[in-house]
Amino acid sequence: MSRSFYPPVRTLMGPGPSDVSPRVLSALSRPTIGHLDPLFVDLMDDVKQLLQYAFQTSNELTIPISAPGSAGMEAAFVNLVSPGDTVIVCQNGVFGGRMKENVERIGATAIMVHDRWGDPVDPQKVAEAFKAHPEASVLAFVHSETSTGVRSDAQTLCALAKDHGALAIVDAVTTLGGIELLVDAWGADAVYSGTQKCLSCVPGISPITFSPKAIERIQNRATKVQSWFLDMQLVMGYWGGNAKRAYHHTAPVNAMYALHESLLMLEEEGLAASFARHRKNHEQLVAGLESIGLSMAVDAEWRLPQLNSVLIPEGVDDAAVRGQLLQDFNLEIGAGLGELAGKQWRIGLMGYGNNPVNVNHCVTALGSVLKR
Amino acid sequence: MSRSFYPPVRTLMGPGPSDVSPRVLSALSRPTIGHLDPLFVDLMDDVKQLLQYAFQTSNELTIPISAPGSAGMEAAFVNLVSPGDTVIVCQNGVFGGRMKENVERIGATAIMVHDRWGDPVDPQKVAEAFKAHPEASVLAFVHSETSTGVRSDAQTLCALAKDHGALAIVDAVTTLGGIELLVDAWGADAVYSGTQKCLSCVPGISPITFSPKAIERIQNRATKVQSWFLDMQLVMGYWGGNAKRAYHHTAPVNAMYALHESLLMLEEEGLAASFARHRKNHEQLVAGLESIGLSMAVDAEWRLPQLNSVLIPEGVDDAAVRGQLLQDFNLEIGAGLGELAGKQWRIGLMGYGNNPVNVNHCVTALGSVLKR
Repeated sequence: MSRSFYPPVRTLMGPGPSDVSPRVLSALSRPTIGHLDPLFVDLMDDVKQLLQYAFQTSNELTIPISAPGSAGMEAAFVNLVSPGDTVIVCQNGVFGGRMKENVERIGATAIMVHDRWGDPVDPQKVAEAFKAHPEASVLAFVHSETSTGVRSDAQTLCALAKDHGALAIVDAVTTLGGIELLVDAWGADAVYSGTQKCLSCVPGISPITFSPKAIERIQNRATKVQSWFLDMQLVMGYWGGNAKRAYHHTAPVNAMYALHESLLMLEEEGLAASFARHRKNHEQLVAGLESIGLSMAVDAEWRLPQLNSVLIPEGVDDAAVRGQLLQDFNLEIGAGLGELAGKQWRIGLMGYGNNPVNVNHCVTALGSVLKR
Repeated sequence: MSRSFYPPVRTLMGPGPSDVSPRVLSALSRPTIGHLDPLFVDLMDDVKQLLQYAFQTSNELTIPISAPGSAGMEAAFVNLVSPGDTVIVCQNGVFGGRMKENVERIGATAIMVHDRWGDPVDPQKVAEAFKAHPEASVLAFVHSETSTGVRSDAQTLCALAKDHGALAIVDAVTTLGGIELLVDAWGADAVYSGTQKCLSCVPGISPITFSPKAIERIQNRATKVQSWFLDMQLVMGYWGGNAKRAYHHTAPVNAMYALHESLLMLEEEGLAASFARHRKNHEQLVAGLESIGLSMAVDAEWRLPQLNSVLIPEGVDDAAVRGQLLQDFNLEIGAGLGELAGKQWRIGLMGYGNNPVNVNHCVTALGSVLKR
């Protein structure tokens, strides 16, 4: 009779959400307290500190946005870009295209730097774009392209932005916790992520960090930020400093419990150990996939260990295979996105889900379905 | 040694978040599945149907926005208002002011209709505003003002909008599930709410509904919606109809489990029974507060049963009293907001928290602290 929803226990090896740690699920369901409760304010401070560690930054404005990663992206753009600005946007997958949408909806101009989907962003092309558009005030790129499984050279790209007096906006949705991300050392100015990838947390929150230069840009804006909800000057009043917290919106209290627990787990393991684990299980997965006759889609140098793009063999029915994996093995792998739909699978090995059990389950199940 | 966060069990009788039902907390922590999983898609359909019941609407576009109520407000405005439009905004508390911010950040003009904080919106003034501004294409008002505890006459105001060919945007954040809300019968065009009030759910999600006339307005826009994240044309692709779901953003899967369970509880109880319960416990609370010498701030006719504004007696230290309630009784009541800070308390009786135990706990604890 009950219509209550009892989900099956899936193994989530798509592009996210990834497997959530039981510790995180347990934290999620603890009793709700008020968003202005002194104990919650202490928790906010702890979340901020743990995020600074995860991002490797001392940026004061390092907070979780109360909405998914795409709102984190929007927060970076609407705060740092004003109408009439020129922004160089690198596109080598789906999410660069979303950045373009963000720039244009602000009334700014996006200068697109295109690379083949499956290749990293070419810094040489970015240098040329800066030469052609010295007025560009922001460079935006995706560090870990979730649609292709490709890493780009964030350090070099951030340096290029700095050389040309531009701010660097970096999409690190699939990066955070999985591979190296050095916000301060690289000089990134706005970096946003998501909770549902390598943080092993439930989807819905977007950690973000802004450099002092980015804050200066925000404070010197001639126009108000077009989004009230994402206006960092207002959000800072709630999250910022030691002063009295100003009410902005009601924080998603339980989601913050979950994020806190997941960041704590990352700190306990240590970033270096987490990166090494992601690398090691990735290598096992690649060996396993190759042993059943599959080929990786991305050059080894630029592969993301946390998101593995695999070529779908000729004649194989993409949707049927994924359907059987879900049906018979409770295993979710990701479809190709955009122009890669039907051509590639995306196999996530993120956070808590990055472990030998998942590697073996995936290789065995996929091998068995492909033999049918 | 652990820095894991174990919150105390508070009684939440502020303006929200309110007490969350244990059924909802239990649903929240069930295993995460993919946001494109067929089982999750079924759940989305069920959530939509349950929301239609809660809103009393057959609107096809009735969905949860993946962000708090203030993002729901922004979604209503950025989709229905274009640069250059004129919007009549009623302000009789904090949230009307936030509506003005939303209108102005779109590049539209807000014609303000002011009423005293603590009074309902005066339909006569709204009629005059329409006479002075026949070009107004939207009327926006707050049905249940969370900052003052006042209900306004939504039915009359929606009829006024219709008479003048304008769409009605209605803030029902504190309304939904607590008092009557008849979206279709009243002819409201965009109505948004929050999960953390009378739905007894965790904070973070904003249910919203758009009428067919509102959808028509969206589809005939000359410019793109300024927010990519809140663009209903894109969100519809994920939530809408029976067609193939298009990926927009990663839905907050576990929060949807929680919302689903809370809506199910509302359906099981029935709207009429829920409203009667809110009314009955409210009357008990008022009697109790008056018995310890306190006075209500709002005229009986316009009082919200779910949010009770109480005058702080002369000479009483607002913050000290609230601090002692929290410290000694684990009881949270709300401070005054904006110009009512220090003058009123706001005592919530919302959803699951609307029960005789909470009424008695609050009256007894407050009586005891005030006698100190």
